[in-house]
Amino acid sequence: MSTTGVTAPQGFTAAATTAGIKPSGKPDMALVVNEGPRFDAAAVFTRNRVVASPVKFTRDSSADGQLKAVLYNSGNANACNGQQGDADVEQAVSKAAQLLGLQTNDFGVCSTGLIGELLPMDNVLAGIDQLAQGLGDNGQAAAEAIMTTDTVAKESVATGNGFTVGGMGKGVGMMAPSLATMLVCITTDAIASHDALYKALVAASNVTFNTLDIDGSTSTNDTVIVMASGASGVEPSQDELNAAVLEICTDIANQMQADAEGVTKRVTITVKGTDSDEDALNAARTVGRDNLFKCAMFGSDPNWGRVLAAVGMADAAMDPEKIAVQFNGQAVCVDSTGAQGARDVDLSGADIDVLIDLGTGGPGTAMVRTTDLSHAYVEINSAYSS
Amino acid sequence: MSTTGVTAPQGFTAAATTAGIKPSGKPDMALVVNEGPRFDAAAVFTRNRVVASPVKFTRDSSADGQLKAVLYNSGNANACNGQQGDADVEQAVSKAAQLLGLQTNDFGVCSTGLIGELLPMDNVLAGIDQLAQGLGDNGQAAAEAIMTTDTVAKESVATGNGFTVGGMGKGVGMMAPSLATMLVCITTDAIASHDALYKALVAASNVTFNTLDIDGSTSTNDTVIVMASGASGVEPSQDELNAAVLEICTDIANQMQADAEGVTKRVTITVKGTDSDEDALNAARTVGRDNLFKCAMFGSDPNWGRVLAAVGMADAAMDPEKIAVQFNGQAVCVDSTGAQGARDVDLSGADIDVLIDLGTGGPGTAMVRTTDLSHAYVEINSAYSS
Repeated sequence: MSTTGVTAPQGFTAAATTAGIKPSGKPDMALVVNEGPRFDAAAVFTRNRVVASPVKFTRDSSADGQLKAVLYNSGNANACNGQQGDADVEQAVSKAAQLLGLQTNDFGVCSTGLIGELLPMDNVLAGIDQLAQGLGDNGQAAAEAIMTTDTVAKESVATGNGFTVGGMGKGVGMMAPSLATMLVCITTDAIASHDALYKALVAASNVTFNTLDIDGSTSTNDTVIVMASGASGVEPSQDELNAAVLEICTDIANQMQADAEGVTKRVTITVKGTDSDEDALNAARTVGRDNLFKCAMFGSDPNWGRVLAAVGMADAAMDPEKIAVQFNGQAVCVDSTGAQGARDVDLSGADIDVLIDLGTGGPGTAMVRTTDLSHAYVEINSAYSS
Repeated sequence: MSTTGVTAPQGFTAAATTAGIKPSGKPDMALVVNEGPRFDAAAVFTRNRVVASPVKFTRDSSADGQLKAVLYNSGNANACNGQQGDADVEQAVSKAAQLLGLQTNDFGVCSTGLIGELLPMDNVLAGIDQLAQGLGDNGQAAAEAIMTTDTVAKESVATGNGFTVGGMGKGVGMMAPSLATMLVCITTDAIASHDALYKALVAASNVTFNTLDIDGSTSTNDTVIVMASGASGVEPSQDELNAAVLEICTDIANQMQADAEGVTKRVTITVKGTDSDEDALNAARTVGRDNLFKCAMFGSDPNWGRVLAAVGMADAAMDPEKIAVQFNGQAVCVDSTGAQGARDVDLSGADIDVLIDLGTGGPGTAMVRTTDLSHAYVEINSAYSS
């Protein structure tokens, strides 16, 4: 049995193939199958209102809280393809359902790649033939087949009390959005209802994937799916399930952050001293998406004035005369004024911690993780489709 | 008499000097004086809650609708300097008031430059001596002295029916925010009340400077002031005043857009087909601040998928299946699906028009102007304070 990724838990098989969707000739299709005995599932999707055909399909097919398989392709997002895009999903799933003896409603579908190009259906249908014949302990191959510009495959395994959770992911959330789409598949052999899975997934996503989502450019295709086979015969408590799912999501989110393209700095922004956690999150996101601040981080420049200029625009309670800022634990701004030695703080390392106190004395706090804005970011994202 | 800028209208004098605030040794202080007989004025300020000491001062001093002079410096924003920053403004204004025989409350003060450094007050006070002795028809010299990384001085003159409006500006709004601060001074010899001036200024700003303010990184120092001397003896109607002030603001905003640093493309985004103008503005701003979209523009890449991915996150009514996009008048997306030839649209020119129809059939429409995200932007903004 595979010890990594989605086939680590009992009751799951996977397959991967090279269908020719990617011009590079690298693997570009994968299938993850829940062999049962239970088929409980939950999913969370992009908040974008422009959603890809596979997202529309999977929202519907997962609405009953059950999934038996997820079909993946990379190299083409099948987004903004209109009714033809929807029809292509239906055709692909129909073929896979026929080969596996399942209903179309048993499938989830996830795609990632360029927006606005029709799927090459001859390749896709031939690929499904290959996938159906190749099911086995192929978690790692599946993780490799969903990569786009990821440089490493992203897998994780967590062990609970008598049950196992596995996962694979691709993309880097919104941290380097040319890769844009974040796809994650989590599998477990625990006995867990849809409701239990959904609770665990939302709780974990909120503190992992969603903290990476810092520039608002949420993709048309983001999908995180969790499936439970019950094959271990163990039914963990909600707390036990939450902990194991959180461990997987944390690990994969960390791998995504580490693999973010064009990134030279990993920046963690923590905000406190405001009325509510929501206010703190608004403030942290406002700073995290500010291009001036992100350029200063690229330049290892302790320019705390940009933090104040950015946070002053946030929708959050603050005392504009009492804002404090620390870079890497060193005070650079106190009472909205420069601290001694502020310009000499060393930001040359790859990790930068920013702590912002908005000065109201309120209990609100939040954290987001972002990156610098680098030449490589511009380079990668100015030459994507052409 | 000067035929350009703030000294073009009757009743205004100006001076400029090199006080040594800028390390470059270029001119860095200016003074604009309204010699009367009337002293009506109005001002609009940054929406940022973190504001510089000169903004706090000028908010108070202009609250009575009267100003007789505005003191400018470049090279130092006097922002985030705490009570010392406030005290420095008071000291500078006290000296200028003494020299000119005015009250401190007669002054506006505007600063632009690095945040978090105290003003070199010896230089500032000596500079004020020079300014008081040098008042004359020096509109152009004043416009040059407020430049930071602007490459050209920005002036404008408009002629009404018996009255003149002049103006100077610096910065590029939020289009290339390393210059961040936008300062504008508008003068007129018309007879106009504070209320009339304020109405004209807000109406003009909303469709000029505010449409440039597209990434939310509003500066701590942005200030636009209008002063009326009444020296022409002509009292225009509100419509006549509005038209002349709009002409000045449009001209200066265009000069700011053309001078934006690190910019290779000027991008105009128009949104229609949504419920309200506010919805349309939200959508246009969301696209205009999307880094993926801005990188595509830098690459002359007609990647309309990024427009859809960005606009799908906007707080605006839309039909996600009916969105249409045009680049430079050519359809690239119809019914949220690629149009024929979309990838071949030529975006190699410096000006790109983007038209987005959100497909609801509603009457809302709005326009914002933005730029591409270029290597030069990153270069300039990653090496600002250090």
